[in-house]
Amino acid sequence: MTKSNAPIILLAQPQLGENIGAAARAMLNCGFTELRLIDPRDGWPGYTPMNSRHKGPHNDAETSYQNALAASAGATAVIENAAIFDTVEEATKDLKFVLAATARNREMTKPTYNLPEGCEKLANHKTGILFGCEKAGLLNDDIALCDGIITIPLNPHFSSLNLAQAVLICCYSWSTQTTFQPPSTERDICSKDDLYFFLNSLETSLKEKGFFDKTPQKEERMKRNIKNIFSRNGLTETEVNILHGILKALTKKTTLPE
Amino acid sequence: MTKSNAPIILLAQPQLGENIGAAARAMLNCGFTELRLIDPRDGWPGYTPMNSRHKGPHNDAETSYQNALAASAGATAVIENAAIFDTVEEATKDLKFVLAATARNREMTKPTYNLPEGCEKLANHKTGILFGCEKAGLLNDDIALCDGIITIPLNPHFSSLNLAQAVLICCYSWSTQTTFQPPSTERDICSKDDLYFFLNSLETSLKEKGFFDKTPQKEERMKRNIKNIFSRNGLTETEVNILHGILKALTKKTTLPE
Repeated sequence: MTKSNAPIILLAQPQLGENIGAAARAMLNCGFTELRLIDPRDGWPGYTPMNSRHKGPHNDAETSYQNALAASAGATAVIENAAIFDTVEEATKDLKFVLAATARNREMTKPTYNLPEGCEKLANHKTGILFGCEKAGLLNDDIALCDGIITIPLNPHFSSLNLAQAVLICCYSWSTQTTFQPPSTERDICSKDDLYFFLNSLETSLKEKGFFDKTPQKEERMKRNIKNIFSRNGLTETEVNILHGILKALTKKTTLPE
Repeated sequence: MTKSNAPIILLAQPQLGENIGAAARAMLNCGFTELRLIDPRDGWPGYTPMNSRHKGPHNDAETSYQNALAASAGATAVIENAAIFDTVEEATKDLKFVLAATARNREMTKPTYNLPEGCEKLANHKTGILFGCEKAGLLNDDIALCDGIITIPLNPHFSSLNLAQAVLICCYSWSTQTTFQPPSTERDICSKDDLYFFLNSLETSLKEKGFFDKTPQKEERMKRNIKNIFSRNGLTETEVNILHGILKALTKKTTLPE
């Protein structure tokens, strides 16, 4: 179910390898595979940062990479194939349309889309969603390179998402919106005939037991209620058989001494 | 933006305080505030587990609680107000409609809803979404108590979400969907407590009648099947009363001459 036309996910200045890995996992959960990292704080194997915006690494590149792999929980290929860039400009130049994901409103003269609208805009090829670093979000300079802003509608009093969760919501929304598929529900539903046969048996037993005797004027209504209880909801053949078994057991004369 | 009619989030057998906290954060991000924990592995301050399904705690309750608070990133009130229960049955008995969140398809005869459909079903008051533990997900016995299953449409080849992410996607979907949807038809649904009371009576009667005696090895499975038959579908209070009446009538000793 990997989606060849899924937007590319771009993480600007990510700090922790763990978060990169968790974002990769969230991506692959939704069928996204293409990840680009811009100036990751701790570097990356084979990548030497130029003019990093970070004050310096906290881990060595290999440790950070291994942390990312571990946190990806199996989305190894996403991590292994991640492309690394120095700047957002470099990372986006082959793309045709990029939206910046932000929780807060920015005072920028950019088109701002809510998530469903934004996902519609991202339905074409060669698009991307840009996420900022864990601590400070996106810089206005980076947002300025984007075609618009995508906002995630959250509790305005508690809108801070961690990076992987922001990635998850965006990927999930895009994924369900563009290829929405209902799950197939195949159950072995009994025939109406089987159901009616059970209902008749039940009514007969109830009649024998005097169930309708107290309020005979309500007998028809009560029978309708009983039908409603059992016919509402696609019983399977097995379940109807169970119900027959229950009825038989309950009406059996007790042979135990009293 | 906290939503007074938001479903209650129920976590069955959660293992790590960190995950409980991350789930609370995801909840509050979407305006959800009511959290219930069932048999948390490491206990909880003031809670002594009875018949825990876990092999034992890995942390003491206070440490786990502090980890939850830290991971909640400020969703403190959700953690502080979390209610703790021994069993799913206890935790759901005042609710009227509960869906079990699963990634995998289960071979159970339950209505299965995709996420948007499920959220529609959860638009009324006194509903809940039940999530299983990090490692093994939900037990079939717990699912049997639910009205249906909610599936999150993900990459079928990589569908394992961590707990907080599953909570986030469900809460986010509900939250964005219900703001623009009127609640669906309100029926006078019985409380789970009423339903469990009937199911217990039925099981007791069946036991007395020797229903499970022929194939005792199948007793648990059969009980689960019976729960599935009756819990699938929002029985009303009246209907549960009818079922009690039926049970009483069927098990009554016949006084007629034969």
